[in-house]
Amino acid sequence: MGIADELAEIPLVDQHCHPVVLDDLDGGELARMLSEAFDPAPEGTSGFDSHVGLSVRRWCAPVLGLDPHADPTDYVARRTTLGATESSRRLLQACGTSDLLVDTGLPLPNSCSLAEMAELSEARVHEVVRLETVAEELAATEVSAGDFGAVLAEELAKRATTAVGFKTIAAYRVGLDLPPTPPPNAEVWQAADRWLARCARTGRYRLDERTLVAHAVWSCLPLGLPLQVHTGFGDPDLTLHRADPSLLTPFVRALPEDAAPLVLLHGYPYHRHAAFLASVFPKVVLDVSLAINHTGPRAAAVLAETLEVAPFGSLMYASDGVGLAELHHLGAAQFRQALGRVLEEWLAHDVLTPTDASRFARMIAADNARRVYRLDSR
Amino acid sequence: MGIADELAEIPLVDQHCHPVVLDDLDGGELARMLSEAFDPAPEGTSGFDSHVGLSVRRWCAPVLGLDPHADPTDYVARRTTLGATESSRRLLQACGTSDLLVDTGLPLPNSCSLAEMAELSEARVHEVVRLETVAEELAATEVSAGDFGAVLAEELAKRATTAVGFKTIAAYRVGLDLPPTPPPNAEVWQAADRWLARCARTGRYRLDERTLVAHAVWSCLPLGLPLQVHTGFGDPDLTLHRADPSLLTPFVRALPEDAAPLVLLHGYPYHRHAAFLASVFPKVVLDVSLAINHTGPRAAAVLAETLEVAPFGSLMYASDGVGLAELHHLGAAQFRQALGRVLEEWLAHDVLTPTDASRFARMIAADNARRVYRLDSR
Amino acid sequence: MGIADELAEIPLVDQHCHPVVLDDLDGGELARMLSEAFDPAPEGTSGFDSHVGLSVRRWCAPVLGLDPHADPTDYVARRTTLGATESSRRLLQACGTSDLLVDTGLPLPNSCSLAEMAELSEARVHEVVRLETVAEELAATEVSAGDFGAVLAEELAKRATTAVGFKTIAAYRVGLDLPPTPPPNAEVWQAADRWLARCARTGRYRLDERTLVAHAVWSCLPLGLPLQVHTGFGDPDLTLHRADPSLLTPFVRALPEDAAPLVLLHGYPYHRHAAFLASVFPKVVLDVSLAINHTGPRAAAVLAETLEVAPFGSLMYASDGVGLAELHHLGAAQFRQALGRVLEEWLAHDVLTPTDASRFARMIAADNARRVYRLDSR
Repeated sequence: MGIADELAEIPLVDQHCHPVVLDDLDGGELARMLSEAFDPAPEGTSGFDSHVGLSVRRWCAPVLGLDPHADPTDYVARRTTLGATESSRRLLQACGTSDLLVDTGLPLPNSCSLAEMAELSEARVHEVVRLETVAEELAATEVSAGDFGAVLAEELAKRATTAVGFKTIAAYRVGLDLPPTPPPNAEVWQAADRWLARCARTGRYRLDERTLVAHAVWSCLPLGLPLQVHTGFGDPDLTLHRADPSLLTPFVRALPEDAAPLVLLHGYPYHRHAAFLASVFPKVVLDVSLAINHTGPRAAAVLAETLEVAPFGSLMYASDGVGLAELHHLGAAQFRQALGRVLEEWLAHDVLTPTDASRFARMIAADNARRVYRLDSR
Repeated sequence: MGIADELAEIPLVDQHCHPVVLDDLDGGELARMLSEAFDPAPEGTSGFDSHVGLSVRRWCAPVLGLDPHADPTDYVARRTTLGATESSRRLLQACGTSDLLVDTGLPLPNSCSLAEMAELSEARVHEVVRLETVAEELAATEVSAGDFGAVLAEELAKRATTAVGFKTIAAYRVGLDLPPTPPPNAEVWQAADRWLARCARTGRYRLDERTLVAHAVWSCLPLGLPLQVHTGFGDPDLTLHRADPSLLTPFVRALPEDAAPLVLLHGYPYHRHAAFLASVFPKVVLDVSLAINHTGPRAAAVLAETLEVAPFGSLMYASDGVGLAELHHLGAAQFRQALGRVLEEWLAHDVLTPTDASRFARMIAADNARRVYRLDSR
Repeated sequence: MGIADELAEIPLVDQHCHPVVLDDLDGGELARMLSEAFDPAPEGTSGFDSHVGLSVRRWCAPVLGLDPHADPTDYVARRTTLGATESSRRLLQACGTSDLLVDTGLPLPNSCSLAEMAELSEARVHEVVRLETVAEELAATEVSAGDFGAVLAEELAKRATTAVGFKTIAAYRVGLDLPPTPPPNAEVWQAADRWLARCARTGRYRLDERTLVAHAVWSCLPLGLPLQVHTGFGDPDLTLHRADPSLLTPFVRALPEDAAPLVLLHGYPYHRHAAFLASVFPKVVLDVSLAINHTGPRAAAVLAETLEVAPFGSLMYASDGVGLAELHHLGAAQFRQALGRVLEEWLAHDVLTPTDASRFARMIAADNARRVYRLDSR
């Protein structure tokens, strides 16, 4: 059995994704959700005029019973006939995923629950808790500025009892140059005072105070769970160069010796930078999730670039599927194909043995994540 | 007919180039103009020892009646025998370009006129007005500092009546972190006062005042024409990291809703960053012009990287040909070959249908530019 | 004879490497030295789970008389049986290197001498003097702060009489934004005062004062030797984005007209940025050394990316071998293979003639370095 066939069979651990939305969608809504943009595509073009659009037609259409490369209109019609729930079920189950690590902190309207994700996918579902969301929910309570820091730390400790990891979107909010020491209590108090007043005044609870983000990050470190960090590209809310994982270097150097792994998500177009960090700091692990489902036939190139210097024990599969089960499906289908292509090329160049290739495939597809999140001890 | 053959036939819109120089050139002058460097190549090497040098021998020699890979000396001799004008005519016409968008703001000695470009190329020629040049020409008049801002805005409005777009080289002069709001009049006045005094004192009219560059940019936005922005690599005057298109993000977010498209030129080696901006901001479109004519057989790789996340409706062909008609020709020849190679690979991987490939080829080669610059309504 | 066969025969100039260590090593020590990390690989993975690990098994095992892809345990056992000295001798001689330029400034315990490197490798060995090490050794003497600047300059002048080049690791210590003018004497005095006091207090002699690094760099420029600059990735001591070669641009522009070449080492993942500098500043030359021995089958891709805009007269081979003769060997073996693959692809695309390919291969493998370091006049 070749490595590509073997990869088709390995149950995946999807170490970073989000819940799906079970609403029926028209063509415009579907196209919009395929893109990271907030605004619609320019007149004369369509949200399907991109790799992710082509990939839906190529990979998802057959799962819903259509021919590959089905027309977008036919795809939407078929999805509506089956219903969003049945379509999502088919797409998720065809991923062949054993475990989903789900970030529950993205406020997407009508997202399904973790229980529904488990039922739809027939996979084990584990929660990843987003730090910023916990802080924002806390801000909406009667908490005082003086208590904010301590109560947030307590709440994170509570969430740690049921979650498998934390996640921060500091890249979006304050940039990745996190401080190499926990902010002092007095500063946390002042920042909370400033921020809570602003939230109350504007009615908008969006954690963008650098000190409070840093406090949340440093508060979760002693809890023993891996911390996922969004790095690299995302939606229009992101300023790309502030999401360069290299900015994390002073923070990484300052991690306590017994800290759990730091997981760099996405990375693209800084995936080589992320891989460098993984190569020199064994605590750093990574995925290239969003770059798998968004780059179509180039996913193999992105993986190959990442694997130039990333140790094979540091890379993990993830789909970053969000809202649409199509995205979870594209992550899985394209990951299997892309990694298979990379390993086949290495074998053709006589760089490693088939036994090595098989072991690395299993590590990247599932075993590294099982180790990092200690999934087998749960 | 395969996609490569089809691409060979599509009339191109070259959305960013410059006039040619019709002087006869010796080997040293020609080699110098092939490079973006100001200084000659080190002793023992030649300006032909680069992809652009190889490409001239490979692609341009046959157009002048020589064998492919002709020796540089033979090439120069043949070019001299034919004369610069006849050589340029042959090279430009062999591009198969229907429309040239010509930046008239680069002060290259002995550049030909737009009428001559049209005559030589047998293509429609459209003007792109460089903001900095308009400001510098204005500075050389008797304008007062107090009037400078308003007169510049008026002059740009006047130029907009005949141009198809504007261009800024802010990357070279002040870096791409343009402010997200127009500078206040009082600041424009002060900056003009400072800058005009410096121009008068030094006799050098080079717009490098951040406030004035920002004023020029914000003044052209309401005029309804696309604004081209130099991003990425260029000549020795450029500091690369200040030309990272990601630095534009706050400015892009602040664009008025009815603003015309913002066109990121070149991008390389930040072409993935530019593509990301295009993927999340539908107003942002791009080319990889300079990177096509300068990277030889790697143009396909650069295009493929750009098309990882750039929507297919956002990418446009351009040659960035400047001074030498050879560069316009290399842009066209290598673009056709490179995009053909990319699409053939996608077809081989069954990523899209031949109909899709044909449509995307036409969009990138011409139709996207026709839409962005509204060429069909002229 | 094809270009790959030709490349296998060209004696290489390794323009950047370090001495080897002749201690016998167990498996853990060997794995640790293969990686740039300071900490061991995470439990359940090994230092051999990387391209450099695979490459040792693939390329070095046969040199020690084992089958390709030998098991790590067998490799370590065989290396021990042969002894570190004999193993190093075999690995170094199998490189086919005529000249080694050795950076003697890395304080690796038990490094062999230059004479031993020459004896082991049967190559000519030339010294490259690391500026920071000279300054640190000087600081450990009785030198006064007032004399420090002048004495350092004198010491560098003395070292220049026997060395072929200098090297700076400013990237590690202060970042690459070196000042475009020499620091004034008064500032050097003050900085020396501050730094020497700190050294005396802490007993740690590590040159991380920006003014003193700048003084060392500017002091070596008039000495007429090429200056190597570490750029891009390295060990955990490095903050990647501060090692972006683009940060050097103002310094490069300020180089005296008669300055010797500036040699950018490594570059990765900014190798395209380094190549851009080489393309616009003929004084700038480069290697991608560390990226050759660390990326395995991807070395060809890294070379191809570098050669997109780097003039063929600007790129030089280097292994960055350090400590383990395995790394010198991997540099040579993988460079020959990678450049052969790149040139074969260009030939297949009819980009150049076999004569061109042969000339460029010799330039990159050896002739460019012979010219830059004037090796033939020694």
